[in-house]
Amino acid sequence: MKTLTVDLGNRTYPIHIGSGLLQHAELIHPHIQGKTTTIVSNETIAPLYLDVLHKITSPYRNTDVILPDGEVYKTLEVEQQIFSQMLTARCDRKTTLFALGGGVVGDMTGFAAACYQRGIPFIQVPTTLLAMVDSSVGGKTGVNHPLGKNMIGAFYQPQCVLIDIDTLDTLDDQQLSAGLAEVIKYGFIRDLDFLNWLDQNMDKLLQRDKTALRYAIYRSCQHKAEIVAADEREAGQRALLNLGHTFGHAIETGMGYGKWLHGEAVSVGMVMAAELSQKMNWISKEAVQRVKNLLLKAKLPIEPPKAMSATQFSDLMSVDKKVQDGVLSLILMKSYGECIVSRDFDPVALQAVLSRE
Amino acid sequence: MKTLTVDLGNRTYPIHIGSGLLQHAELIHPHIQGKTTTIVSNETIAPLYLDVLHKITSPYRNTDVILPDGEVYKTLEVEQQIFSQMLTARCDRKTTLFALGGGVVGDMTGFAAACYQRGIPFIQVPTTLLAMVDSSVGGKTGVNHPLGKNMIGAFYQPQCVLIDIDTLDTLDDQQLSAGLAEVIKYGFIRDLDFLNWLDQNMDKLLQRDKTALRYAIYRSCQHKAEIVAADEREAGQRALLNLGHTFGHAIETGMGYGKWLHGEAVSVGMVMAAELSQKMNWISKEAVQRVKNLLLKAKLPIEPPKAMSATQFSDLMSVDKKVQDGVLSLILMKSYGECIVSRDFDPVALQAVLSRE
Repeated sequence: MKTLTVDLGNRTYPIHIGSGLLQHAELIHPHIQGKTTTIVSNETIAPLYLDVLHKITSPYRNTDVILPDGEVYKTLEVEQQIFSQMLTARCDRKTTLFALGGGVVGDMTGFAAACYQRGIPFIQVPTTLLAMVDSSVGGKTGVNHPLGKNMIGAFYQPQCVLIDIDTLDTLDDQQLSAGLAEVIKYGFIRDLDFLNWLDQNMDKLLQRDKTALRYAIYRSCQHKAEIVAADEREAGQRALLNLGHTFGHAIETGMGYGKWLHGEAVSVGMVMAAELSQKMNWISKEAVQRVKNLLLKAKLPIEPPKAMSATQFSDLMSVDKKVQDGVLSLILMKSYGECIVSRDFDPVALQAVLSRE
Repeated sequence: MKTLTVDLGNRTYPIHIGSGLLQHAELIHPHIQGKTTTIVSNETIAPLYLDVLHKITSPYRNTDVILPDGEVYKTLEVEQQIFSQMLTARCDRKTTLFALGGGVVGDMTGFAAACYQRGIPFIQVPTTLLAMVDSSVGGKTGVNHPLGKNMIGAFYQPQCVLIDIDTLDTLDDQQLSAGLAEVIKYGFIRDLDFLNWLDQNMDKLLQRDKTALRYAIYRSCQHKAEIVAADEREAGQRALLNLGHTFGHAIETGMGYGKWLHGEAVSVGMVMAAELSQKMNWISKEAVQRVKNLLLKAKLPIEPPKAMSATQFSDLMSVDKKVQDGVLSLILMKSYGECIVSRDFDPVALQAVLSRE
């Protein structure tokens, strides 16, 4: 097992990464203060791992809340159902919530923890690659709104993140690839060495080689922990983690939540960011090709959906959280392996990318 | 004008109290960072004060969100409508929200500010006595759940509280009395001198004498600011501010939100707390009578609704936020003018109070 720390003063917490960690109650128990727990999971994950987690929560009075599976259920209405079940079960301010599942379960459980009786502790137990390397770490929680993804939420940190990589055994190939998009993202943002490693080890990752997966997850979480510790509430560099996300969120919202996996939309978004960077001559056409090749190698899409017009992209991107006083910031590439946050992109070049000219 | 400060490190903010303050844009403008504002108000208050506030927001691109009036609309569903209007108006992370109204508008606007794009600034402009002396100060925000009052929310502090006591001119008598319940509460908790002053000046307050009102509001806010600064997230003494609230919330939820005004329910709740304290011989029967007399003088109810059984009280009180690991804390009276937080009350005496024996 390896342990990383997200260093946030009195809200500092550990990320444990390894095989078989769900067997180790001693990693979890120190983070539970009260006598009650609530496990939030979904219909897909619960049959696989709920029993194992029940062994950990057996010393406590536990309640299960099982959500329907999918991004389309990441809503305030479903959040209200979590609250109803918790109130019915007499959960109180000392109840510890567990998020057992992927990004949707993690984001919704974290937001439930942030809001239930104005805040209770929670623990992330991610079971998808995407949740392990990105959404379970850093305290971004929330739900979607019909008019925009992740528009309602809170910055709220967990007590602990427990990454048992054995849970990836049950992940389907499409979800595995979607997670790899966020792994590759760290390379594009700030780690050329990691990009080279990924290029050489992509086949192993797709074949679920545990050593390769553990390394990719550890390195990803290392980047995430470092960036979050430096800029918890995204006043500056944390925005880099949104590479591809403004385009990607527009695709997810525009196509209907759940039609595209988040990681797939981010993959296309990263290509669009690369293309915009190239049109402004920040990076070469060869660099764009390297971006595409690596994503293709991870079996990810690189073309935006034909159904989406440039106008629809523009409209959806105008409600992005990185718009301030009407001006959008984008994460763009300065070189292969280095990104910056910029408000100074060429709007004509952006239109060309959105129109696929 | 008088100004108090809520001292919370980098979240410190002022409370301005005086007549005609809504004419003074210079009090507000320093607290607005971006180029956009959104005013949240309700159907009753908007026709009275929206135009005045529009003068203050005129340098900014402003959006109005007008809610229906009443506690029954303090829900997650109505909160979602605020988000919809804000997204449609392209509000961003720099938009400043204004809460123009009473406690419901303040709580809902504060919670919207806490959650919209994971947190934006907001300013409290309370127009009811209750909101001025209690709910607009201290950062408790949120909505009701059908199973419990204020169960969903956040601790989220405003940038500034602007109390223009002239807005009390349009408050109806019942609402004025409801606000006085929270004013009297500060006396019961920790200020015998204030109780004596209130006893002598209650008629002036009911006649809306501005000097008396200003003093009562100032002294109430002083207590609130001091307690909140010492214990923002209610780990200890802040719970004292909940005197009468566990009983009161049960009445509000049990009778249906909006049937009883919050202050009226708290008035009865404080009498019940006094009666329980007396049954345990902490205070005398004479002290209970003084509690009742002062509340009666403020034209407040002192008897719980006949429709509510002891069982219904018990059930509703068991989801109170002061329950931890199944044990309820109550705020009880040690003497006339002094309260404590206690888990060591006599359950038989509590049953007797709930059964009105």
